[in-house]
Amino acid sequence: MIHFYVKSTKGQTSPDINLSDLAGSAGRLDIISRCINSALWLSNAMRRDVVFHTILHGEPNPPIYIRIEGAKLRKVQPDERNISIFLKKAIERFKDGKEIESTPGIFVSRKSFEQLIEDNKEKTFFLLSEEGKSLEPLDKVKYTDAFFILGDKEDLIDSEIAYLEKYKLNRVSLGDKSYLASHCITIVNWLNDKI
Amino acid sequence: MIHFYVKSTKGQTSPDINLSDLAGSAGRLDIISRCINSALWLSNAMRRDVVFHTILHGEPNPPIYIRIEGAKLRKVQPDERNISIFLKKAIERFKDGKEIESTPGIFVSRKSFEQLIEDNKEKTFFLLSEEGKSLEPLDKVKYTDAFFILGDKEDLIDSEIAYLEKYKLNRVSLGDKSYLASHCITIVNWLNDKI
Repeated sequence: MIHFYVKSTKGQTSPDINLSDLAGSAGRLDIISRCINSALWLSNAMRRDVVFHTILHGEPNPPIYIRIEGAKLRKVQPDERNISIFLKKAIERFKDGKEIESTPGIFVSRKSFEQLIEDNKEKTFFLLSEEGKSLEPLDKVKYTDAFFILGDKEDLIDSEIAYLEKYKLNRVSLGDKSYLASHCITIVNWLNDKI
Repeated sequence: MIHFYVKSTKGQTSPDINLSDLAGSAGRLDIISRCINSALWLSNAMRRDVVFHTILHGEPNPPIYIRIEGAKLRKVQPDERNISIFLKKAIERFKDGKEIESTPGIFVSRKSFEQLIEDNKEKTFFLLSEEGKSLEPLDKVKYTDAFFILGDKEDLIDSEIAYLEKYKLNRVSLGDKSYLASHCITIVNWLNDKI
């Protein structure tokens, strides 16, 4: 199983999302939607071995944690608008105090970044960073529990990185250029396909 | 310079595009918009050495050819909706009989696939195909004039492929899996960055 976490620095946490303004008032939910597309879609198929995680940190009710399990996902189309409709449904159905499966394969709850890392501490964390070691196709052992961590438009903050450093953290790079988060995910998936 | 052509099999050719239904009534302009994002965007920068080409084959006025030159592109944001707004402007400003620069870096005219290939016949054509030879980072010579050809949701038709075969055509593969066109473009760009 391969996991991707993309921080949504300003993703709106009330369900009155304007689907015509994902890149504006919704707090760049366009980026998160494109990342979900990159993480989970093949041509005419889903990546059943991928789990996508995000935490929306925007107003008015952060943090809201959303997990999308490729193995269970149904009904969603790969365009930004359709994916965002399902994020909106997740926020609508969010309830404090328990995890809800808002639609098939999409789970929503209250969770901080630190708690998410704690819940996944048995996995191997990879932080995408231009100063990291060049990422090569992962070996099979690592692949079974790789957990990739990316920022959206903004990088993770220092305290988040410090928290990650409590665990085994691999800093990996895709090269000298700085890529969009969604493009990084596409490349990581492709490198893993080459195993 | 690197070129990408993505066929838009059903892309709408009248300007009354419903931006809330790109994946439906607009004839999958969501796919073309994602391909443009993949071809031209880096994080906080544009790929100035990339040119993106598409021909809209949908009703009511096909074919409409749109070319986006990374070197000149301005004002466009990387989300599907914003890119589609600029495609819509191109179709609005289209005039039969001459090429118009509808907004900075975006050019629109009447052109068939065969004419586009004829205009670019000095370049080296690469057709993405699962049966092709594994694509490796291109050498510098090829890179200066590589022209990659992809379908959207549908493959090119036999007569288009036969036309391509009049010229030097390289069939290249990204592996055993079948990827979304936008993901293919991201991977090809990344492989070229590794030169």
